[in-house]
Amino acid sequence: MTTNFYAPPSALRGQRVVLPAEEARHVRTVLRGEEGDEITVVDGRGGWYRVEITHLTPEQGVGTIVEQRKDVGEPAVDVTVGLGVLTKRSRFETFVEKAVELGVRRIVPLRTERTERDSIREERLRKVMVAAMKQCRRSRLPGLAPPQSPAALVEAAETERTLVCHADGEAVPIWQAVTETRWAASALVLVGPEGGFAPAEVSSIVGAGGTPVSLGARRLRAETAGLAALHAVVGAHGAAEPGGQNRQSG
Amino acid sequence: MTTNFYAPPSALRGQRVVLPAEEARHVRTVLRGEEGDEITVVDGRGGWYRVEITHLTPEQGVGTIVEQRKDVGEPAVDVTVGLGVLTKRSRFETFVEKAVELGVRRIVPLRTERTERDSIREERLRKVMVAAMKQCRRSRLPGLAPPQSPAALVEAAETERTLVCHADGEAVPIWQAVTETRWAASALVLVGPEGGFAPAEVSSIVGAGGTPVSLGARRLRAETAGLAALHAVVGAHGAAEPGGQNRQSG
Repeated sequence: MTTNFYAPPSALRGQRVVLPAEEARHVRTVLRGEEGDEITVVDGRGGWYRVEITHLTPEQGVGTIVEQRKDVGEPAVDVTVGLGVLTKRSRFETFVEKAVELGVRRIVPLRTERTERDSIREERLRKVMVAAMKQCRRSRLPGLAPPQSPAALVEAAETERTLVCHADGEAVPIWQAVTETRWAASALVLVGPEGGFAPAEVSSIVGAGGTPVSLGARRLRAETAGLAALHAVVGAHGAAEPGGQNRQSG
Repeated sequence: MTTNFYAPPSALRGQRVVLPAEEARHVRTVLRGEEGDEITVVDGRGGWYRVEITHLTPEQGVGTIVEQRKDVGEPAVDVTVGLGVLTKRSRFETFVEKAVELGVRRIVPLRTERTERDSIREERLRKVMVAAMKQCRRSRLPGLAPPQSPAALVEAAETERTLVCHADGEAVPIWQAVTETRWAASALVLVGPEGGFAPAEVSSIVGAGGTPVSLGARRLRAETAGLAALHAVVGAHGAAEPGGQNRQSG
């Protein structure tokens, strides 16, 4: 089987799984699945299930759980990324897809001094996130918060470490920062929109305990910076990741 | 100034720079530049120049070099990434843009057993590469090779280390592999197309000295895998990068 299927927790009762109509259709038409076949279902909350299909019609798919695991495909660290709402929606979408693949736990669109757009296409982004979760075979669906200010996010976040991407004299290379945070169980990474954070925004984040980090000698686009920082944080915990059964593919 | 300008080596004679027409137009119309202003020009071969504009018409820009440096924005490691030609062209384009930002030195589209497309849009990709080079403020324009087989690339490459993204029993986590290769001056990273490499292709790369690496517990899309592996290799050398004067921005 090439992909996981998604059924929210409400679709699971005891050993019985009722696939949402769209997922059932996918089993039939794309995979040409039949009763008796086994598929992998995740509930988006860390639940991972091997399911035998017992009943399959054009509109419905019902199955029985034959194996159950927890947090398959999940990183050892809980990372929230706050990224400025980007003017180009396709760039925010690219970020979202790849952040899910790279193991983000929560995405928070930021309204900052220099953002030129207020809103995100929430429904569209959630679809991208579900597709990426299934495709990359993780078991948690990352959260997508409503757009908010960096100050509100920093105040509400309960993460152990906060990193803000903003290279200036005081910034430490992220590779150094993530080695220091190696044993932090959770991290918040903040990245500005296209024009970066305003200096006052950075001061306020640093004042609240954030560490300014730089991502190397090149000036990365906002969405690239978010992905690079996320990857560095998750990677520093890589050795601790369970499973490691990934296979690269499209 | 928010971006660098590009003038190939042939446009530089002594202290004199003649900007290509398109770049001169950009100075005038986008930046509202005037004679006497200073801009940063890179030649795509590692040359970095601070240039005072001495003559600016709608079709032409001429300037004098006032400062000259070498390899500004370049990583300490020479990384070639071979990535299977992707069925979705926009995904290959996303890879190319972000690989330039993350410091790739050479991109090689691969024709493999499972690629479903033979060709790339070379002209389009070169434009993306030039724009990314200018935007991220590096001074070298990475190379773009013609599509070829992994075997041909591995045979021709003169890199010290070869990593092939293909998690199986023998794969080592990339974070471990890049620590081992920390002092290698050059690396070749190979990533298959959407469906991954065929087992025989991996065997042949490993037979030629390649190390199979895994990228964590999630199955990454091909272009994400290429970027993640590149970032890990460049990042392991991050401490050695000159400059580090990046500023995140769009």
